[in-house]
Amino acid sequence: MQPLMVAWRDGWSGRVPLVVQPASPSELAEVVAICHRTRTPIVPQGGNTGLTGASQPHGDDSEIVISTTRMNRIRAIDLDNDTITVDAGCVLATIQQAAREAGRLFPLSLGAEGSCQIGGNLSTNAGGVQALRYGTARNLVAGLEVVLPDGRIWNGLRGLRKDNAGYDLKQVFIGAEGTLGIITGATLKLLPLPEATVTAFLATPSPSHAVAWLRRAKAALGEAITSCELMERACVEVARKHDDRIQDPLASVHPWYLLVELTGQGAPEELEERLLPVFEAGLEAQELVDGVVASSAAQAEALWRIREGAPEGQRREGVSFKHDVSVPISQVDRFIAEANAALAQRFPGIRSFAFGHLGDGNIHFNPIQAAGEPAEAWQGRLPEVNLIVHDIVAGLGGSITAEHGVGRLRIAEIRRYKSDLELEMMARLKRCFDPLNLMNPGKLLDADLIAAAEGEA
Amino acid sequence: MQPLMVAWRDGWSGRVPLVVQPASPSELAEVVAICHRTRTPIVPQGGNTGLTGASQPHGDDSEIVISTTRMNRIRAIDLDNDTITVDAGCVLATIQQAAREAGRLFPLSLGAEGSCQIGGNLSTNAGGVQALRYGTARNLVAGLEVVLPDGRIWNGLRGLRKDNAGYDLKQVFIGAEGTLGIITGATLKLLPLPEATVTAFLATPSPSHAVAWLRRAKAALGEAITSCELMERACVEVARKHDDRIQDPLASVHPWYLLVELTGQGAPEELEERLLPVFEAGLEAQELVDGVVASSAAQAEALWRIREGAPEGQRREGVSFKHDVSVPISQVDRFIAEANAALAQRFPGIRSFAFGHLGDGNIHFNPIQAAGEPAEAWQGRLPEVNLIVHDIVAGLGGSITAEHGVGRLRIAEIRRYKSDLELEMMARLKRCFDPLNLMNPGKLLDADLIAAAEGEA
Ligand SMILES: Cc1cc2nc3c(=O)[nH]c(=O)nc-3n(C[C@H](O)[C@H](O)[C@H](O)COP(=O)(O)OP(=O)(O)OC[C@H]3O[C@@H](n4cnc5c(N)ncnc54)[C@H](O)[C@@H]3O)c2cc1C
Ligand SMILES: Cc1cc2nc3c(=O)[nH]c(=O)nc-3n(C[C@H](O)[C@H](O)[C@H](O)COP(=O)(O)OP(=O)(O)OC[C@H]3O[C@@H](n4cnc5c(N)ncnc54)[C@H](O)[C@@H]3O)c2cc1C
Repeated sequence: MQPLMVAWRDGWSGRVPLVVQPASPSELAEVVAICHRTRTPIVPQGGNTGLTGASQPHGDDSEIVISTTRMNRIRAIDLDNDTITVDAGCVLATIQQAAREAGRLFPLSLGAEGSCQIGGNLSTNAGGVQALRYGTARNLVAGLEVVLPDGRIWNGLRGLRKDNAGYDLKQVFIGAEGTLGIITGATLKLLPLPEATVTAFLATPSPSHAVAWLRRAKAALGEAITSCELMERACVEVARKHDDRIQDPLASVHPWYLLVELTGQGAPEELEERLLPVFEAGLEAQELVDGVVASSAAQAEALWRIREGAPEGQRREGVSFKHDVSVPISQVDRFIAEANAALAQRFPGIRSFAFGHLGDGNIHFNPIQAAGEPAEAWQGRLPEVNLIVHDIVAGLGGSITAEHGVGRLRIAEIRRYKSDLELEMMARLKRCFDPLNLMNPGKLLDADLIAAAEGEA
Repeated sequence: MQPLMVAWRDGWSGRVPLVVQPASPSELAEVVAICHRTRTPIVPQGGNTGLTGASQPHGDDSEIVISTTRMNRIRAIDLDNDTITVDAGCVLATIQQAAREAGRLFPLSLGAEGSCQIGGNLSTNAGGVQALRYGTARNLVAGLEVVLPDGRIWNGLRGLRKDNAGYDLKQVFIGAEGTLGIITGATLKLLPLPEATVTAFLATPSPSHAVAWLRRAKAALGEAITSCELMERACVEVARKHDDRIQDPLASVHPWYLLVELTGQGAPEELEERLLPVFEAGLEAQELVDGVVASSAAQAEALWRIREGAPEGQRREGVSFKHDVSVPISQVDRFIAEANAALAQRFPGIRSFAFGHLGDGNIHFNPIQAAGEPAEAWQGRLPEVNLIVHDIVAGLGGSITAEHGVGRLRIAEIRRYKSDLELEMMARLKRCFDPLNLMNPGKLLDADLIAAAEGEA
């Protein structure tokens, strides 16, 4: 049971008397029905890769874990309808692979894809590097099957792209972090498999120049832009420092970079030909200062390795405080500038470390302590740093959790950033579907908020 | 008040003692608060173009209408973020126009766009001809502002593409047909304005051949396929018969047609060059038998006029029973064949009339009475025809209302086609947000279903 009790990265841990791994929706439903009768709280768990303490139990043996790991069948694939129906416990990479073998793309893609499960992806409304083009997990769902907190199975597994017959109930469960029911199956949308990929690494003076160029690129290239990742110089440096295979792709040093991926049908040369004038126009307008287009799959991989090496390099560099925020794309530059200024004033020597999905306004803003500052002292600063960063995010109309969700990590903070009315609406929704608060209690919403909403209703 | 009391097409009508047309969200909220105190039921109304009797009041003077017509400001446009923030009463065409003037596309597009309002579009989760590429209205929303049934204003007007901070409450109000609150504002996503359009009219032996070709076309052309409308020969015939400007675009007669539109960045010739091999491969595989590509905007318009003339031609031809259904795309052929066979057996001489958005599996299946059958007698057959058609739809995993919603039109029928559990979940959601059933009562969900859910809770 131990691996299911701990988070792989952030130290969340807990204990339960029992882990159940049902093999089918009906087995799972039976277990949930027993929990309902016995008032036993449940922690639903998929691949346990979540980053907010939502999939680990509390430490008091009060809950059980229900894991979907054994429910891992691809149930059906419909090539005319471009849908695949899967068990919730299917690993994301398995679904991607099944789609690819059928000549289709399942576009959800993230670092944890080799171990996270689709039930977890849908319950966290995961984003990832291709969300710019294909949207988040929510956009990829045609239908859901859910075991409700009382053990009944709701079959909403429809393979339809249009269905306005009543409330769209599946939306309620997507992104609900297991607090409203357990997803046991899903019908997912498949897309055409792109034939060509072009990867480019571009240097830009600042985030605002990057935003200006992205605007130009979207006008000229439309949906072809599949990823647009922003990185500051520090990301390249720590990635290089801690991984010998990583090279600086450009001859000189620049303060900011964009890693851009275009995909589409047709020949790669055509796609590259479409990119070049946009690149040149960017140089001319001084939105860009340099750049390189990968001339082979190996080169493209090397460029992506920089982006993917950034979190690991950063981990080795010091203690970084992770912020997974989003702001309107028009505010990205201002957010980074204001947050860095406020932190530098309060914590001289603090090292800025920003990267993320520029096309979604989703920035991973992960400052590292000043060189020489002991880790323990710095750890104690976390609440203060969060407050500074998240207040700026909120002031710019942003979200304090763009991708990873609330879980336990942000459960106190959202009370500061959401209106009382919105918290009340959330609490009502929770009570509507899980009146006994048996589904993943203490995640996403505090029990006292739920109790307060009861008073209101 | 009279125009607001009647439906433009289907004869729904009602009466109220009062129509209120607030000029701002706060005025609207004040009116709703008064209704809450006085327990006065409300019918929210936008452009009043809905097709299910949802926007007209009942006939007993028990309700008031709150119309958003005077709330018609474009509040803001953010070009870096690709969003536009509007009042709910903005006419759809006005938003499209504002986007176009800013060099962007707002892709929602439907026959009623000159008079429907965005609040109505979002409340019906409208689809339209470009949903294949851009999704339904739901996919185009970044944030919402909603007046709740007790008169409080929920400000969820975020311009974010990623926000996982808690339940995604806006999803609850989209497609809710005004039964959970009144949308007063929305932040909508804008897309790159396509530079090129290619329109083609293709002949195909059957819907299953059409599906096979669409599959081929999606693989080769990806998102470039913006519309893919299926029509049977009868559509072309009645369109021509009742509109002199409409010509048969192909030399010979064929049983089925596809109207396909590609859009994209770059030159139209490039887009056409991409289509041609796919067209030829379709001919070779006998998925297609003939076709023409519009060589001018005027020709493209003439092709669209056939599609757009079909409903009007059909109206003049007899009494058509309209079905707005969806099935998985893989079942479209079977649906049309089975429904026609069952109807022909029961009603000899009945005339089939099917067209719709093939790419979404959304078929408007509108049979007309046998030549010579009096309209009144035929009208009496409607329940029986609905039962035959909708039972087949349900058997194939489809929806009895793909686009237009439930309203009053399908409120009895959904009880047959939804599971008890799903009806109960819908009723719970209704009670959660509108416990007094003041918002558009008697639409989407019967009061007795709501009362039953109360017993369960
Ligand atoms: C290396 C790495 C990279 C990552 N990159 C990204 C990224 O780019 N974008 C992004 O959005 N996220 C990212 N994540 C976090 C992401 O949320 C998760 O990896 C993934 O979506 C969770 O899936 P899981 O199966 O591991 O869920 P778990 O961690 O097991 O659970 C996550 C939440 O979902 C609930 N849950 C799980 N299964 C179900 C179910 N069947 N029904 C109901 N509730 C359920 C749990 O109770 C919990 O609240 C990353 C994580 C790692 C470790
Ligand atoms: C010629 C024609 C073509 C059409 N083509 C299509 C099509 O291709 N695709 C498609 O999906 N539909 C189509 N429709 C129907 C479509 O649903 C409506 O035209 C449109 O979406 C409704 O907008 P409206 O402003 O007229 O809403 P209304 O008719 O006024 O209202 C519709 C529903 O929304 C509610 N409502 C309205 N405003 C609000 C608000 N601000 N807050 C909360 N609730 C509100 C009403 O109570 C009602 O339940 C067509 C209609 C016509 C007449």
